[in-house]
Amino acid sequence: MDELELIRKITRDLPTNDRVVVGAGDDCAALTSGKAGELQLFKTDAIVEGVHFTRDAPAEKVGRKALARCLSDIAAMAGVPTAAVVTAGLPRDFAPDYALGITRGMNELAREHNVAIVGGETTTNPERILLSVSLLGVVAKDRITLRSGAKPGDAIFVSGDLGGSLEGRHLDFEPRLEQAHWLAEAFRPHAMIDVSDGLASDLKHILEASGVGAELRSASIPISRAAKQAAASSGNGSTPLNRALSDGEDFELLFTLPSRQAVPLLDGWKAQFPDIRLTCIGKTLEEPGLRIRDDKSGRPLDIDGYVHFQKPE
Amino acid sequence: MDELELIRKITRDLPTNDRVVVGAGDDCAALTSGKAGELQLFKTDAIVEGVHFTRDAPAEKVGRKALARCLSDIAAMAGVPTAAVVTAGLPRDFAPDYALGITRGMNELAREHNVAIVGGETTTNPERILLSVSLLGVVAKDRITLRSGAKPGDAIFVSGDLGGSLEGRHLDFEPRLEQAHWLAEAFRPHAMIDVSDGLASDLKHILEASGVGAELRSASIPISRAAKQAAASSGNGSTPLNRALSDGEDFELLFTLPSRQAVPLLDGWKAQFPDIRLTCIGKTLEEPGLRIRDDKSGRPLDIDGYVHFQKPE
Repeated sequence: MDELELIRKITRDLPTNDRVVVGAGDDCAALTSGKAGELQLFKTDAIVEGVHFTRDAPAEKVGRKALARCLSDIAAMAGVPTAAVVTAGLPRDFAPDYALGITRGMNELAREHNVAIVGGETTTNPERILLSVSLLGVVAKDRITLRSGAKPGDAIFVSGDLGGSLEGRHLDFEPRLEQAHWLAEAFRPHAMIDVSDGLASDLKHILEASGVGAELRSASIPISRAAKQAAASSGNGSTPLNRALSDGEDFELLFTLPSRQAVPLLDGWKAQFPDIRLTCIGKTLEEPGLRIRDDKSGRPLDIDGYVHFQKPE
Repeated sequence: MDELELIRKITRDLPTNDRVVVGAGDDCAALTSGKAGELQLFKTDAIVEGVHFTRDAPAEKVGRKALARCLSDIAAMAGVPTAAVVTAGLPRDFAPDYALGITRGMNELAREHNVAIVGGETTTNPERILLSVSLLGVVAKDRITLRSGAKPGDAIFVSGDLGGSLEGRHLDFEPRLEQAHWLAEAFRPHAMIDVSDGLASDLKHILEASGVGAELRSASIPISRAAKQAAASSGNGSTPLNRALSDGEDFELLFTLPSRQAVPLLDGWKAQFPDIRLTCIGKTLEEPGLRIRDDKSGRPLDIDGYVHFQKPE
């Protein structure tokens, strides 16, 4: 049984109640908030030493990353983050200064986004540091953006440049909260997700949730410089395009909207966010499945993207 | 720097915002909920294999315990739990059936208390299982019970029998939600906490938060059969009383209220919960510090209770 199959079994029959509007399976859960017209978002995420960061990573950046990943999930729902709690599993030999560094990095990012840190728990995890962050947020009922809303014929967009994030950017990325709020306000995307597992994997999440297919244009995929360098130095035959399609931890926004909105969107985005690339990478189709095409032909895209349960360093 | 000193440094300067009513430092945080007269509770907690349970513990009981600990914290604020998210750190060699067993145990307890499980995250934690649960709840503003409300001259009560929980009860305890709701409705305790670190430690949390002291009567401490057996078999000179004062993981309610309410409380409790012992174990004092007395004399109580960062098995 692989991770996906296990998660499918686990999420098949979860306890629910009348507060749940969106349960497990999207970037965040959404609950009734007690305030008319507003939903509450709820998300948990974790990073582990040797899997998501190495012991030589600066403590501040590790703490920052633990929170930033959750902020990116709130962004993917077009929400505003509000309050977090943190569990830290710490080895017996952990340096208190390292733990304080983690806190500094996390607090600084929290303050930038007016997020309160309202509780935590430290426990022993003898062999390695593990940080689990749970984050609350709010979103207007008519602004929430799910994975499941894509329609055939939508244009597919992604922010930023993709691939090679583990070469450095994963410790410094900016969660796309501002961009998501602007998008939800000005364009109401049909579907949205943050790219955490890799472009191909995360697009498949949208397609499966929405019951549509898609075709990407290989020449349009925005490939980062890090992806090019990683492909050149890996020596295992992986190409920059493969990197951009399958590397994880980009934390960019991937979304769809009616194709007639493509031009006004690109113009509006450029005016608002001149320093962040936005690219139309393809379109959704009625026929299920994910395809990619170059000038000559199309083929099914079977790159599954970043797989969790990877071997720790 | 020990754990308490580190936590003191970490919690000194946490980011906050205008949603925070009670920040880090009580059993749960309390946030504005968007609904007049109601607060939202938010808590995180974690259990680690070899620290809080052993690999031979039944998976269902491990999953149950991970959630039950958080439910106990919601009880300590007199709240009603609503929705949880779960992070599971799993070793590379974990058995999928074990993970499904954890889920079954957690789901069953969640359903008993009408708690929705709305999300989760699995990640690699190569050497051992780690489960982190974050739980939301609600509580009426005029019912929330903090650690900080004890007044000099209060009577101190504890539910159940204490000590020796790690001999088995820690995997089966019932979070005292029903009892806490009854208490908050009928008697409005001045201060309340759940006994997780050990009676002496947790009472000190109430005393420090409230700026009062206390004297316990040693003959009144309710000692569990497991504490007596554990003391007899340990061979390290620890007494049953010591066990009851310092063992952790009892998850009973410890609370104070005006001493004139002691008799009606004991009568009412006995009628409501005939199978759960409630004991008056002492009283709060104006003078700071925790003392314990027998028939002859009083002495300061320096047993710190269960210490985290213990050596894993």
